[in-house]
Amino acid sequence: MTKNFKITIEYDGSRYHGWQRQKTDRSIQNEIEKALAKMTSCKVTLIGSGRTDAGVHALGQVANFACDTRLTPDAFFNGLNSLLPDDIIIKDCEMVATQFHARYDARSKIYQYKILNQSVPAAIGRQYVWFIRKALDCKAMQTAAAHLIGRHDFKAFEGTGSPRQNSIRDVFSTELIEHADNLLIFEIEADGFLRYMVRNIVGTLVDVGLEKISPTDFKNILDSKDRSKASATAPAQGLTLIRVIY
Amino acid sequence: MTKNFKITIEYDGSRYHGWQRQKTDRSIQNEIEKALAKMTSCKVTLIGSGRTDAGVHALGQVANFACDTRLTPDAFFNGLNSLLPDDIIIKDCEMVATQFHARYDARSKIYQYKILNQSVPAAIGRQYVWFIRKALDCKAMQTAAAHLIGRHDFKAFEGTGSPRQNSIRDVFSTELIEHADNLLIFEIEADGFLRYMVRNIVGTLVDVGLEKISPTDFKNILDSKDRSKASATAPAQGLTLIRVIY
Repeated sequence: MTKNFKITIEYDGSRYHGWQRQKTDRSIQNEIEKALAKMTSCKVTLIGSGRTDAGVHALGQVANFACDTRLTPDAFFNGLNSLLPDDIIIKDCEMVATQFHARYDARSKIYQYKILNQSVPAAIGRQYVWFIRKALDCKAMQTAAAHLIGRHDFKAFEGTGSPRQNSIRDVFSTELIEHADNLLIFEIEADGFLRYMVRNIVGTLVDVGLEKISPTDFKNILDSKDRSKASATAPAQGLTLIRVIY
Repeated sequence: MTKNFKITIEYDGSRYHGWQRQKTDRSIQNEIEKALAKMTSCKVTLIGSGRTDAGVHALGQVANFACDTRLTPDAFFNGLNSLLPDDIIIKDCEMVATQFHARYDARSKIYQYKILNQSVPAAIGRQYVWFIRKALDCKAMQTAAAHLIGRHDFKAFEGTGSPRQNSIRDVFSTELIEHADNLLIFEIEADGFLRYMVRNIVGTLVDVGLEKISPTDFKNILDSKDRSKASATAPAQGLTLIRVIY
């Protein structure tokens, strides 16, 4: 009988060319599919909740796969973790209804972006932050980020060369908090994200923080639906997919 | 005129064979001396506050070097940071009295050891923790750790094959705190440390946490001055030199 398994995955994206299976480069999907192939006789296709780009991390990526097997979720959990490299961890594995689809059924996703804002970069944990030397005006960034909430056409923050038919997304919440150790954490929840959307938003928010543009300019950029008006894409390593909600 | 410079260094020890200069392997001292050689004409010898072992990290290692130069501390600060790889950061550079010696003048050092105590390992930040699956009894570990405070002969926790003439050290404080995210952080301050001392202490504390031995057994091991009674050395990657106090 074909069973459907849902897995929750944590990964350090530093050494990978993103989630999606690649012909030549290493990808998270590849690694997990290879491990699944060692455990089962059927050719398993892993369906992720969505792609993450090269260098992006995940604390709670979700995927599912169908397989005609006698193996239990526990067997997959233990087997995958012993086969996978130490920068990919299966945090949970459960059996779900046959119709469950990790991508189509996702109601929302939460991403987090970390900025280290101090005069000297860090050596420890540098793989997980964007280092910015000049002091950022966090208040102004918060004001700008509030404009993101609600249903908008996010074309201005969509990666060029990768247009979706529909670039309207619903942002449920944003949060920008200054933590101890000069860490600025931006969190955003939406029903879906366009390619590079979070990183383009963060790149533009940082220009608000640097007072190159105002929070009102930020709103105007969003409203313009014109990618050329937004700032450069923030680097991948600061971004982490925190959770996928079903 | 020969000037004496004091630098404070953060490093991610993952890719290095420790602090000390090596003929073949990469070391922190090597990297900084190479960078100094590019900036000055004199052959500079870097004096560290002490060695850290292969794979051990530092947030605040201190070193000094004497150099007949017109360069200012700021010039060294900026120059070194632009020449060094991104896992070694100079956090501070100042000119100090000629007689300042990073090793001899150190009054105490603070080390921190991080244990991730949960059922599943982490992918993100795995380079900086020792992952232990079985639940640890933190209270028992705290009771055991308290026995370390004061002036003791720490021979039982000294690395074999590296005896010092004098293995008596003065431990000023220890602290073991359970943080959120299942992180257990052990901190210890002493006037000096023997080779592998912190890692041997942590290895033995973990056996207390696993209830293999009792806090009283821990005290007896310390008192025995017999390395063979203590537990295995904890892995390097959990250890960080936090601060050197002068």
